[in-house]
Amino acid sequence: MSTCLDSILAEIDAGAAAARDRLINWLRIPSISAQPAHAADCLRAADWAREHLAAIGFRAEIRPTAGHPCVVAHHPGTGGKAPHLLFYGHYDVQPADPLSLWRSPPFEPAIMEGPHGPRVVARGAVDDKGQVAMWLEALRAWHVVAGGPPCPVTVLLEGEEEVGSPSLDAFLAANRAELKADVAVISDTGMWDIATPAITTRLRGMVYAQIDLFAASRDLHSGLYGGAALNPINALTRILGELQDADGRIQIPGFYEGIQPVSNVQAAEWAALGFDEAAFLGEIGLKTPAGERGRGALERLWARPTADLNGIWGGYTGEGGKTVIAAEAHAKLSCRLVPGQDPQKVAAGIRQFVMDRLPPDARAEVSILNTTPGIEVPADSPWVQAARGALAAEYGRPAVLVGSGGSIPVVESLKRLLGLDSLLVGFGLNDDQVHSPNEKFELTCLHKGARSHARMLAAFAGR
Amino acid sequence: MSTCLDSILAEIDAGAAAARDRLINWLRIPSISAQPAHAADCLRAADWAREHLAAIGFRAEIRPTAGHPCVVAHHPGTGGKAPHLLFYGHYDVQPADPLSLWRSPPFEPAIMEGPHGPRVVARGAVDDKGQVAMWLEALRAWHVVAGGPPCPVTVLLEGEEEVGSPSLDAFLAANRAELKADVAVISDTGMWDIATPAITTRLRGMVYAQIDLFAASRDLHSGLYGGAALNPINALTRILGELQDADGRIQIPGFYEGIQPVSNVQAAEWAALGFDEAAFLGEIGLKTPAGERGRGALERLWARPTADLNGIWGGYTGEGGKTVIAAEAHAKLSCRLVPGQDPQKVAAGIRQFVMDRLPPDARAEVSILNTTPGIEVPADSPWVQAARGALAAEYGRPAVLVGSGGSIPVVESLKRLLGLDSLLVGFGLNDDQVHSPNEKFELTCLHKGARSHARMLAAFAGR
Repeated sequence: MSTCLDSILAEIDAGAAAARDRLINWLRIPSISAQPAHAADCLRAADWAREHLAAIGFRAEIRPTAGHPCVVAHHPGTGGKAPHLLFYGHYDVQPADPLSLWRSPPFEPAIMEGPHGPRVVARGAVDDKGQVAMWLEALRAWHVVAGGPPCPVTVLLEGEEEVGSPSLDAFLAANRAELKADVAVISDTGMWDIATPAITTRLRGMVYAQIDLFAASRDLHSGLYGGAALNPINALTRILGELQDADGRIQIPGFYEGIQPVSNVQAAEWAALGFDEAAFLGEIGLKTPAGERGRGALERLWARPTADLNGIWGGYTGEGGKTVIAAEAHAKLSCRLVPGQDPQKVAAGIRQFVMDRLPPDARAEVSILNTTPGIEVPADSPWVQAARGALAAEYGRPAVLVGSGGSIPVVESLKRLLGLDSLLVGFGLNDDQVHSPNEKFELTCLHKGARSHARMLAAFAGR
Repeated sequence: MSTCLDSILAEIDAGAAAARDRLINWLRIPSISAQPAHAADCLRAADWAREHLAAIGFRAEIRPTAGHPCVVAHHPGTGGKAPHLLFYGHYDVQPADPLSLWRSPPFEPAIMEGPHGPRVVARGAVDDKGQVAMWLEALRAWHVVAGGPPCPVTVLLEGEEEVGSPSLDAFLAANRAELKADVAVISDTGMWDIATPAITTRLRGMVYAQIDLFAASRDLHSGLYGGAALNPINALTRILGELQDADGRIQIPGFYEGIQPVSNVQAAEWAALGFDEAAFLGEIGLKTPAGERGRGALERLWARPTADLNGIWGGYTGEGGKTVIAAEAHAKLSCRLVPGQDPQKVAAGIRQFVMDRLPPDARAEVSILNTTPGIEVPADSPWVQAARGALAAEYGRPAVLVGSGGSIPVVESLKRLLGLDSLLVGFGLNDDQVHSPNEKFELTCLHKGARSHARMLAAFAGR
């Protein structure tokens, strides 16, 4: 470890209380992107970040979008041209309701004692202001001690992540040249546990489809027509009931094409995590793993695709009975995808799966509402290697490479529009109550996260 | 034919215009049982019938129920004690909306010319005031010419048929002794066509079930849990998708137990009807018969049971996509039953069918909302034979024995509570617009229906 890094880490240690207070000030701003009444608060929260960045040597601006603005900031770094890092985060937060379940007001940050020491409780504490604050503090320490980060840094903060980032793609596309970088660094994920840092190297993608089945030209009396007229609800269950075979294998044509098996190294690492699936399922009242037979729990959650019906409807759904043969029936189907699967081919496969099973007299429409590929950051990429080294130094144990069963849309946007891989290093914990009342962030995570980011900056720059 | 019957038929012919006017007066009363604002009209319509019956020698009363009253009337007959006939009908009508689709006001009966001559257009024209009027006119003619019907007659008119007869069972049970008879005569069904009378000898019954499937203790994020947690909508489609095999055979255990094959005589009679299934399906935009493979169209509609999903729902059903794994999923299933099937066994079979296919971690509730057996009146019963003879005399061709795919709940109630078989002889036509705007009844059906009832009274009494 260089003397310089030592000094930077010491600066972070010495400034921990001030860092906490800066975060608390940011958290006081109710930057709820979903609620128009909070538009001015969103702008205030953006400006808070702009000021913070300007104060530590960044050329920082608020930049308009069709919705809430972005903050873009640049620093040339102190050590030459490469690598160029793009830090992404978001300053907007989820709505706070139901307010009655909060033990302290969501926008009056409270320091409370927990099993891991003090924590800050507020809406946005971990998602994502607290996690952004970690790297803002790391950049501040580098500024104070070394006059700036060791490599060029661009910061991009958006204000619409919690409402699905409707303006982000256009913003990225319009500012492609300015946002050019070598890798994106994002802290919006979690640790494995309080003592074990994690890098998220896999995200599942998605194909979301709506299936509409039509039969007779009107609803029919089931007495007069039952036994002669096609029932589209029966037909729909018959079709969709074949989505999985008895072993949980998904029957959509070509569905598994392109999926690489999980490497032995990866499989061994996941096995070593000792994930307790019984406890995971027990929390939601279940006992028996669903999904493909013969696959490990984390493989099923992180590295295998799914086909889940998210909704189904048709016919009479009120109290009591109505003897109707409906004219139509509907379902929503989402497939979580893993790297290697081509979303367009999966979409075509869903359509073919339905058409192959369509009975005479039924007409089907399959509408694709969304396609996103699964994403994997190779474990041997220099960014992952550098981050692992930095995290190991901070935590005294190796960072684990984990997957996420969900998607982080910005990762796909950054790849598609800017050609950037993302390094996902987050410091949240499972019990942080993301999107729920009493959201919190451990101050030890804030502190060690800032130190980790300071170390990663050094490692990326080869210091 | 006896001279007496000749005179009675001549009396009906001579009084046709008066009979039409009497019906028109009854149709002017908007006795809509579903609408509380029309409660007084229901009472007026009941009283109209009571007066009519009193005028032709019946001891007639309005009798209260928990809802709209019944009319009960008795005549000892002129020819001894047997057989004792119970005429059932209803004086209430469906609501008339949508009013804008009526070509004449629904409660201002209009005489319009059609391909079969004049018809009366009004709500209730055929269902059921016009069909009740036929036998009231037959009884009137017997009264005028012969001093009363040739055998004891009880009349029961209810005022809640169009709202599901909620008070009828209690009324039958409470008046069992008074309503004792040998057979019930009901005119609330149809002819095969304008020239061909029909006796409905088969009605399908029903088991109506709601199936509720439960999995996790709450809705889940499909990214975080997809591949580990049971999806109850997938499970429900998997279960219900197996309701029928590839040949349309219903897979509920024991489902077909007790069903007798249709007799060759019956099958030949149905075949001779020349039912045009292509036209039947074409009217509703379909081409391909559903149901059991290898069975005739009328057999499937009248003599084979069904398993139709009448409704299904679960998860997200709004616009766009939501990536939720729902905690529960639901369906409504009705099985139309045929004679021989035991509704309780079918209900148990439905429960077993679901439980046999229930995946681990799923919990199912199967609620039976309704059970009614299928009903068959033997073609060789004396009542059917007598009616066939009378109808053949009137129409110059044999009456056909038809089935109905639906249920007529009163038939089951009369059987269960009074032990009575029902003779279903109706004079409606397929295009009568029952329950729809511009409901009509052909005056030729009113007239020949009255003559047919007069003839049947003679035949029942052995005259």
